[in-house]
Amino acid sequence: MPADKRDNGARGGKRGTFAYEGLDRIIHERARLAILSSLAANENGLTFNDLKDLCALTDGNLSRQLQVLKEADLLDIEKGTSGNRPQTICRLTRTGRKRFLEYIAELERVVSNAARTTDATVAAPPRPA
Amino acid sequence: MPADKRDNGARGGKRGTFAYEGLDRIIHERARLAILSSLAANENGLTFNDLKDLCALTDGNLSRQLQVLKEADLLDIEKGTSGNRPQTICRLTRTGRKRFLEYIAELERVVSNAARTTDATVAAPPRPA
Repeated sequence: MPADKRDNGARGGKRGTFAYEGLDRIIHERARLAILSSLAANENGLTFNDLKDLCALTDGNLSRQLQVLKEADLLDIEKGTSGNRPQTICRLTRTGRKRFLEYIAELERVVSNAARTTDATVAAPPRPA
Repeated sequence: MPADKRDNGARGGKRGTFAYEGLDRIIHERARLAILSSLAANENGLTFNDLKDLCALTDGNLSRQLQVLKEADLLDIEKGTSGNRPQTICRLTRTGRKRFLEYIAELERVVSNAARTTDATVAAPPRPA
């Protein structure tokens, strides 16, 4: 290797330190993250209207994102009725729960890297001249 | 209000509990989050090559994302030279640091909501019959 070649350690960390490859693109999109977070907190499932409220999404956007998540096998959509009215219940699949938790573990890494930064900044603030 | 109307409290939380509106779209994109995280950890700035390594990005993608971040006033790009070679140094602006920290605070909320879920699941696992 030529002597002037940088080694793996770029300034401020190792190669790929901040690549965050665990931020799964399907889950990372904000509306889908909202949906999965809601479902993770409600093991028995949520109706379309519950999700709309909890995630503050429009009907159109919620429908589209549910479809994406279903195609990725992250959630199940069960069509039934409540009284005389049609009702859709959404639940995380086993895969969905596993991948959501893996995603959250990567988010924790983002937050803890940032916290280290902030601590360092607080410990040694730039001094006025 | 009709008696059969749901009130604001959807199951599992208040309206918008999981909307995560603080997840700023400019910052949330994975490559840009990687770039901002790297710069937050390196107050004196990073070269184009440092960023490429730390974030595991291609030249083209890194250039594109730096441009987006510069247009949003989240970072400064300083073109200079090192020896005889051109060198680009990127740094967070004051706005960039502030907005990055606000974004991280919202990520912490995502993680802590998910952690509550997981704790609950661990505390009361479904029992086999």
